[in-house]
Amino acid sequence: MAEIRTAIPELTQYLGRLLTAGNYDAVKQLLEPEQPVDAADAISNLPTLQQAIAFRLLPKDEAIEVYEYLEPDVQQSLLERLRSSEVLELVEEMSPDDRVRLFDELPAKVVSNLLQQLSPAERRVTAQLLGYESGTAGRLMTTEVIDLKEFHTAAQALTIVRRRARTTETVYSLYVTDGARRLTGILSLRDLVTADPDDLIGSVMTREVVSVTTDTDQEEVARLIKRYDFLALPVVDREERLVGIVTVDDVIDVIEQEATRDLYAAGALQAGDEDDYFRSNLFEVARRRVLWLLVLLITNTGTSAVIASQQGVLHRVVQLAAFIPLLIGTGGNVGAQSSTVVIRGLSTDRLQALGPWRTVAREALAGLLLGLLLAAVVVPWSWKLSGTPLVAVAAGVSMIAIASLAATAGASLPLLFNRLGLDPALMSAPFITTMVDVAGVFIYLQTADWLLTRMAG
Amino acid sequence: MAEIRTAIPELTQYLGRLLTAGNYDAVKQLLEPEQPVDAADAISNLPTLQQAIAFRLLPKDEAIEVYEYLEPDVQQSLLERLRSSEVLELVEEMSPDDRVRLFDELPAKVVSNLLQQLSPAERRVTAQLLGYESGTAGRLMTTEVIDLKEFHTAAQALTIVRRRARTTETVYSLYVTDGARRLTGILSLRDLVTADPDDLIGSVMTREVVSVTTDTDQEEVARLIKRYDFLALPVVDREERLVGIVTVDDVIDVIEQEATRDLYAAGALQAGDEDDYFRSNLFEVARRRVLWLLVLLITNTGTSAVIASQQGVLHRVVQLAAFIPLLIGTGGNVGAQSSTVVIRGLSTDRLQALGPWRTVAREALAGLLLGLLLAAVVVPWSWKLSGTPLVAVAAGVSMIAIASLAATAGASLPLLFNRLGLDPALMSAPFITTMVDVAGVFIYLQTADWLLTRMAG
Repeated sequence: MAEIRTAIPELTQYLGRLLTAGNYDAVKQLLEPEQPVDAADAISNLPTLQQAIAFRLLPKDEAIEVYEYLEPDVQQSLLERLRSSEVLELVEEMSPDDRVRLFDELPAKVVSNLLQQLSPAERRVTAQLLGYESGTAGRLMTTEVIDLKEFHTAAQALTIVRRRARTTETVYSLYVTDGARRLTGILSLRDLVTADPDDLIGSVMTREVVSVTTDTDQEEVARLIKRYDFLALPVVDREERLVGIVTVDDVIDVIEQEATRDLYAAGALQAGDEDDYFRSNLFEVARRRVLWLLVLLITNTGTSAVIASQQGVLHRVVQLAAFIPLLIGTGGNVGAQSSTVVIRGLSTDRLQALGPWRTVAREALAGLLLGLLLAAVVVPWSWKLSGTPLVAVAAGVSMIAIASLAATAGASLPLLFNRLGLDPALMSAPFITTMVDVAGVFIYLQTADWLLTRMAG
Repeated sequence: MAEIRTAIPELTQYLGRLLTAGNYDAVKQLLEPEQPVDAADAISNLPTLQQAIAFRLLPKDEAIEVYEYLEPDVQQSLLERLRSSEVLELVEEMSPDDRVRLFDELPAKVVSNLLQQLSPAERRVTAQLLGYESGTAGRLMTTEVIDLKEFHTAAQALTIVRRRARTTETVYSLYVTDGARRLTGILSLRDLVTADPDDLIGSVMTREVVSVTTDTDQEEVARLIKRYDFLALPVVDREERLVGIVTVDDVIDVIEQEATRDLYAAGALQAGDEDDYFRSNLFEVARRRVLWLLVLLITNTGTSAVIASQQGVLHRVVQLAAFIPLLIGTGGNVGAQSSTVVIRGLSTDRLQALGPWRTVAREALAGLLLGLLLAAVVVPWSWKLSGTPLVAVAAGVSMIAIASLAATAGASLPLLFNRLGLDPALMSAPFITTMVDVAGVFIYLQTADWLLTRMAG
């Protein structure tokens, strides 16, 4: 059979039925050929009591893999239901990076209890990883690395790889260290397999190594792996000693998280714990959203203050009010376009091709051009609807001014924030459009006021 | 040395200086230890004339790798400057998937000319890949695969891998086919290296294979590789015959493209050729953006029509105008939050945990709750600024109604579009906020009108 695509809801349903019937052999046969992540998802969907039973039916090797794919809350509830010997075995066998991710979620008391029971080697590694700040290479990496020496022959090295293959996360990137554990070179399993058995590793390896340190930001790690199409990236400490590697699958998760963060910022949502959104309750959802809404609402009270202070103009030409939402809404969209392009360009490094100054200049010109095009639609429409040339002229002039301003602010504010070391995504669409609202209302009513005064004079 | 992090602008500068001085040996020494992608970037930044000279100085093997990393426009300009024998050699040696990406950009005449000069094997492969629609697994895959037979021993298989390692994109995923080239199993190089030399491949391989067909959408390919932490995914034709593989590095590019597309939709930008943005000229930029702006502008003329038709109310209480931008702007932000959460949840598959109906119900309730919280700020502020309780009551009631409506529309419209097989991102923040503008103005002025009538009566 060439294709397996598991439908998780069906798998969960069969599992539940077989578990209720007590047909444990059939459960084993059902789970055995599944990919670990599919088995993990199906088990997660079972009632809590059945989770532990299904989990115990997995062969030991597979159980650890499945466990690593479970969400932290399911991992935790399983821990409470398994015997402490089972728990210990499970935690002892997990990859150090997955273990640390679990420990992040567990109560401190449980963590220190488990830590004490781990073997000295695993305890040391775990405590070390827990010491790195979250969001850094140190926190993301695994310490399971195959390191070779320059004086090994290819044949010796292959023997080492064979011996360690079962317990190491990846065997495809191999690292060469000196007597002080300093990283001196890398080679791939491909290089090793194609080398002559008598070749020395020192002559086969590459000495130009791209590496990061334990405190390198995870975004930078992702950028390097993406740029160089690596399967793994070595992590060294301040003395250049090899302490671990970050693998490409962890980096894919980082790339997804970054994308979600940028998109959430563009949607007036707080970054951070977005992963749990579909598992949180209603009040939690509202609590997380209301902060940004209040900040934007308070900024937007500026529009009310501006309009209230210009009520004289509105009194004289009430038709002016009809075009306020149109002008500021359109201006907001122009500003959103510029800030989106700049924020994404900063994330993907593509903005470097143009540089910040030329980017802002180009966006300002684009805004002017777009303002002219949009004014060509707004002027006849507002003339027709209001029947007043004054309103049409005020709307047209403001459309051009608002679009130019919106594009300039949309491009320059994220760049400014980036330069100041702040997150440029704070200056994404919602904030830019709200600022454009306030400035746009002011420009429009001031223009109308000026025109009225000129015409009266 | 343990860390190389190339600063491209400096590298380009040195290169340019050495090339101008005619010191070609130094150019060679400078480029040799660089990662291919860094060399490609530095060469891209050189003046066109120097690009060809620098490129010719690369060792042949490296030249092909560097060439694959160049942007299509630089690839094309190099093609025009190299001798046709050099061109042919280059194109012949490229990976089939990279070659197809280049051919997509070249004029049809150049492509057919190059195709004719390729060796029969490479021509067949290229024509085949060009036959698949862009955005499918067939277009993304490479045909360079190592396929083994079940009757091979591990030792024989390792010999095959060694022989083909230099010309194959990845050697870490190995595929097993039967006499009709049908895919019957997979194994990793790790499995092969750890197997006993006399083991038969048929007994070492895994028979449960996750695969896709040539017409599978590239997003689905990315989803599978991400879910299962694969390094590569096999692609089969309708007869289950192995035709190629998609590797994880290509999938990272797909994930980035999808993220950019969603973010661009949220910023009122057209999806598609966003990659070229920082290389396009001003008029091209404006042309691409104006379409969405016009669609939104025309939708937004609804606000003008509503206000113009309700001018009676505004005439009687002109203070009402002061709160229009505040109410519709805040409502738009609430709608943007809901649509962002839903669109991202659809992209990352996390929405499945809740299902569409419960998601909409929850968003509607969240909107109501947020509306109540926001009204608690809007009512006292509008009372204070306008001095009129009528305005405050109208603003408060509309805030609640607008927020509820915005959240409901923001959640349900992307889900509806998704159900209809349309891109849910079309219903992201810009369109939702514009619709909320129109509906919000209507709700606010109708409420005020109703209150006025009641108070008069």
